Amino acid sequence: MLRTHTCGELRKGHEAQKATLCGWVHARRDHGKLIFIDVRDRYGVTQVVFIPSVCKEAHDTAQKLGPEFVVSITGKVVIRPEKMVNKDIPTGEIELCAEGLEILNPSEVPVFGINDDVEVSEELRLTYRYLDLRRQKLLRALEVRHKVCSIVRSVFNEEDFVEVETPVLTKSTPEGARDFLVPARLNPGYFFALPQSPQLFKQILMVSGLDRYYQIVKCFRDEDLRADRQLEFTQIDMEMSFVTAEDIFKVTEKLFKAIFKEIKGIDLPIPFPRMTYAQAQKQYHSDKPDTRKKGEEFAFTWVVDFPMFKYNEEEKRWDSEHHPFTSVKEEDLVYLKNGEFGKVRANSYDLVLNGNEIGSGSIRIHKKDIQKRIFDIIGLDEKEAEERFGFLLKAFEYGAPPHAGVAYGLDRLVAILMGAESIRDVIAFPKTQKGNCLMTDAPSHVDARQLQELGLMMINKGRTQSLQ
Amino acid sequence: MLRTHTCGELRKGHEAQKATLCGWVHARRDHGKLIFIDVRDRYGVTQVVFIPSVCKEAHDTAQKLGPEFVVSITGKVVIRPEKMVNKDIPTGEIELCAEGLEILNPSEVPVFGINDDVEVSEELRLTYRYLDLRRQKLLRALEVRHKVCSIVRSVFNEEDFVEVETPVLTKSTPEGARDFLVPARLNPGYFFALPQSPQLFKQILMVSGLDRYYQIVKCFRDEDLRADRQLEFTQIDMEMSFVTAEDIFKVTEKLFKAIFKEIKGIDLPIPFPRMTYAQAQKQYHSDKPDTRKKGEEFAFTWVVDFPMFKYNEEEKRWDSEHHPFTSVKEEDLVYLKNGEFGKVRANSYDLVLNGNEIGSGSIRIHKKDIQKRIFDIIGLDEKEAEERFGFLLKAFEYGAPPHAGVAYGLDRLVAILMGAESIRDVIAFPKTQKGNCLMTDAPSHVDARQLQELGLMMINKGRTQSLQ
Repeated sequence: MLRTHTCGELRKGHEAQKATLCGWVHARRDHGKLIFIDVRDRYGVTQVVFIPSVCKEAHDTAQKLGPEFVVSITGKVVIRPEKMVNKDIPTGEIELCAEGLEILNPSEVPVFGINDDVEVSEELRLTYRYLDLRRQKLLRALEVRHKVCSIVRSVFNEEDFVEVETPVLTKSTPEGARDFLVPARLNPGYFFALPQSPQLFKQILMVSGLDRYYQIVKCFRDEDLRADRQLEFTQIDMEMSFVTAEDIFKVTEKLFKAIFKEIKGIDLPIPFPRMTYAQAQKQYHSDKPDTRKKGEEFAFTWVVDFPMFKYNEEEKRWDSEHHPFTSVKEEDLVYLKNGEFGKVRANSYDLVLNGNEIGSGSIRIHKKDIQKRIFDIIGLDEKEAEERFGFLLKAFEYGAPPHAGVAYGLDRLVAILMGAESIRDVIAFPKTQKGNCLMTDAPSHVDARQLQELGLMMINKGRTQSLQ
Repeated sequence: MLRTHTCGELRKGHEAQKATLCGWVHARRDHGKLIFIDVRDRYGVTQVVFIPSVCKEAHDTAQKLGPEFVVSITGKVVIRPEKMVNKDIPTGEIELCAEGLEILNPSEVPVFGINDDVEVSEELRLTYRYLDLRRQKLLRALEVRHKVCSIVRSVFNEEDFVEVETPVLTKSTPEGARDFLVPARLNPGYFFALPQSPQLFKQILMVSGLDRYYQIVKCFRDEDLRADRQLEFTQIDMEMSFVTAEDIFKVTEKLFKAIFKEIKGIDLPIPFPRMTYAQAQKQYHSDKPDTRKKGEEFAFTWVVDFPMFKYNEEEKRWDSEHHPFTSVKEEDLVYLKNGEFGKVRANSYDLVLNGNEIGSGSIRIHKKDIQKRIFDIIGLDEKEAEERFGFLLKAFEYGAPPHAGVAYGLDRLVAILMGAESIRDVIAFPKTQKGNCLMTDAPSHVDARQLQELGLMMINKGRTQSLQ
């Protein structure tokens, strides 16, 4: 290590010890003979004092320090006089009296201050994301995000779940939104798709006998961006075999109780209240009811018994409300039979927090004939069903167990926990509303040769032209 | 839960208790009046006996059971007579005397036996992956993979690392292999690329002051598949600030010691031996020396001081041996200056296990001028360097700390731990050597409309034609 301690570590107990700190120059106060700098790293801030009589060379170099210079400082830990103590920071009772200073890397004057209070346009923040991420708010958001993932994993591991990675290069089976396509060079004319969710794979894992699966996983939707969405986003995804909805609720409630306890110090009352879709619509005119009562910070609600189908006026056909792999409530099978599709309720459930849908799941269909019937109702003809979902129908022939699952949106959850306005504030390198990365300038042009290798060319307003 | 116990759970202590098991019919032995079935789930196998006098209906249904039927059985736990005890399985001292049987889902006759001893072609195994995954060997491989990931996370968490997700939709900056491209519909004519590694992002995270980063992350290389490679593979990726190579070695050795202790019960001696690239070449004629001595199962070696450049005879220029972000050994800076590029050694290190390179890393460049000099030597002109890596060079202007990192191949590591012949045996849904998924039939054709939306068309042998 190039340091002996972090910038958040030194205390009174280290008095007279020699220490080397590395970090960024957070502030400099030049008092003529004495120069003070605050040196900052991820762990905190420590005050350093340069005194010419202690080390002339270090004092000279300290005069050249600008904001965000990266430095290594060696010195002795000194206890500050009572009235100089800074009670706002944990290292405020000491300072480091410098005996040596090395500039590890200088810095241009940063385009904005490394300080939560400075108002900066989001465009500038995303362009210089490495400066933005040095600010407390974003750093803490990434740390909390990491913590939430750790808690998710430890709760699922305790409950005997297996984390399994599902493919990113997969088959195009549009689930409502558009798929991102990836040309397959080794199979010209063929394409992979990025998964909108691992839905089919997690169901296949249940057919494989995995019994309890989870994954914290990237999903992709090529949507016209509106509101607070990202082209790629992260789900906490899980699936269980041989369960009822009660078991999904129980694991979920244990999970959120643990997260809110550790992150916010709040004891969530469980089980969460439940409400049918019909009740929610009647009472709150919404399927995402904000059920907070006075003084209540966080209110979770399960909304259950969603309609199975919704009528698509434009296309004159029935669509799935949740997705076509959702099972039908047993007492409503009669409506399925007699064609009253609008009356059919699904075995599906949403988890709503403060009026945000943060998770959605269902008991799945596990029988081939019912699955085919649902495809038929939503207007997927047999050929298309076979082409897109044939492998699932095939798998259902070989001993598919009853199974159910749910997926939670990690980005939204962390944003709510942090009180962040946008999910962009809890993602290390988000894209803009227009789907660009301002830091790397992605997406970008590629070589014509790269396209040729893929057997592709660009069409421009009806004319074809090769990319230059 | 549809069950009260798993199929691996019942013991003598449960005698006379009522239990409901769910699982797959693993075997059936019909002894006329008595029918025995072995019911299997992820946790084990339990013998069930159907006796007509106990429950006629269950006995009748049991006659219809075929292999891999999914069943729910309720019955009483009975202790087997001494001579009927099966010492090979943990539940072998009891059996369940059935009082009820429900067929949850029937099964076609499986195309191969759910049994490790049955020889099955890989093509069939990958097509019916959900049957293949029911076999012990693959199930255990996924469980061990999960366990390895858990250990990785707990070691890194203990050491104050933050797991940060880096983007999957990113900028095309080919690093040796070809990038997979993703057309950006919202920006016609522009493309995202899937990352060959999070290299640039993890360096940017160090510039952001994250200090210690890790991620278990999917990487993508559009290579002609040879040997045992996959188009998408998983890395254990990490980066640290203010460190020397010694710190990378120390965390790594702690990590592998924990993995081998927990998974194999082996106490790895640490620190691992080290060898320079020159020594390895001289003594083993390889940069991946298999240093196992007699009776030794696993031998780790660090290989250090790789050449910085290798001469590309075909293109008549110098290439990076590791990657262009690797720093130069201080004592060799003189060779860099006087143009003796073949003599320059890098601050890079590989971790070799039994003759396999399982990890590779380096101390990175953190100064803009040196980074530009390296780009120049490998023949990246200023314009191209700016286009592809401008954001990194820019970031280096704003206080980049000294940093170093390494990435380990998770698939290969788990394959070695499991004694698997191929990494395909430790990946839930692998692709074939030709880059196809036999189960889902990916990659596949897509609608002409999908291509049109992306502003793309196929070129076929010089002629252009739209996809049908």
